[in-house]
Amino acid sequence: MGATRRINLIIDSQRLNTEVRKNMLINPYWISGFTDGEGTFYVGINKNSTMNVGYQVLPEFRIVQHKKDIALLHSIKKYFNCGVVRVNHDDRFELRIRSIEHINQIIIPHFEKYPLITQKKFDFIKFKKIINLINQEKHLEKDGLIKIIDISSQMNRKDKKKALEIKNNILGQDKVHA
Amino acid sequence: MGATRRINLIIDSQRLNTEVRKNMLINPYWISGFTDGEGTFYVGINKNSTMNVGYQVLPEFRIVQHKKDIALLHSIKKYFNCGVVRVNHDDRFELRIRSIEHINQIIIPHFEKYPLITQKKFDFIKFKKIINLINQEKHLEKDGLIKIIDISSQMNRKDKKKALEIKNNILGQDKVHA
Repeated sequence: MGATRRINLIIDSQRLNTEVRKNMLINPYWISGFTDGEGTFYVGINKNSTMNVGYQVLPEFRIVQHKKDIALLHSIKKYFNCGVVRVNHDDRFELRIRSIEHINQIIIPHFEKYPLITQKKFDFIKFKKIINLINQEKHLEKDGLIKIIDISSQMNRKDKKKALEIKNNILGQDKVHA
Repeated sequence: MGATRRINLIIDSQRLNTEVRKNMLINPYWISGFTDGEGTFYVGINKNSTMNVGYQVLPEFRIVQHKKDIALLHSIKKYFNCGVVRVNHDDRFELRIRSIEHINQIIIPHFEKYPLITQKKFDFIKFKKIINLINQEKHLEKDGLIKIIDISSQMNRKDKKKALEIKNNILGQDKVHA
């Protein structure tokens, strides 16, 4: 029974992968509904000594799925016509869109036209605020970076302690330089 | 800062709840995309001594969300025009649709018209097979019930051991009666 079930699952999975590949026309509202469930707007802030402010701001949009739905991630990638599908962790894969041009030209316009309706909508609004600051190159200045950290710490950031630490670091640098 | 953030979140949440309530026209593809992420097709099989076969079959469609998105569950309930919004566990709420009429007349037609495209599609196909057996009253007979248990154990059922136990119980009854 175990083996039969496994074979059935493999056949099911292959059939769906083929179906998804054949029928690439995903409805845009489906994309927004699925994102309301599974998507993440995230802004990473990483130490980077080559930057003047000592930190790099890395905004990204991602959707993580079990590897059995990897074909779907490729379909969504095709829908947006940008991003990369890569390992997330263990048996999970992600579609990740990091290019600021693609975020500006594709991701933001999509979710403005086909709005999110869960509380994730507010993550998107904060994400847009940060992208706007990046577009104005504010992330390259201390004040702008602090503003970005403040906004991102109200988003889905799990590690709020880290955000506070970074902020203190930047403010600390200021004291040394003053 | 903590208090300010909490207040901001409450205001955000109230504003969104109002928006969602005002704008009840959720796009049907959004519903399917969100279900691909967050929905569950489940078939419970519970001991019930009033049934001839000793077990009751309880199919349901549900969407579970954190309480901050309870207004959205009410909007989806309004969209389908059926179901109940109730506590799931802790701070999570669910929209649950159990009525076999509503499943037949509303839930199945919706997902046939606006298809799921993740692997959850196969749960839906199996769910439909079980509903079809229930429509033919096969769940009231031993053979039909075993068929339902076999199909449901290939779905999202976590407790596969329980499914096997129930099956053995039913087959055991048979031996006693033979």
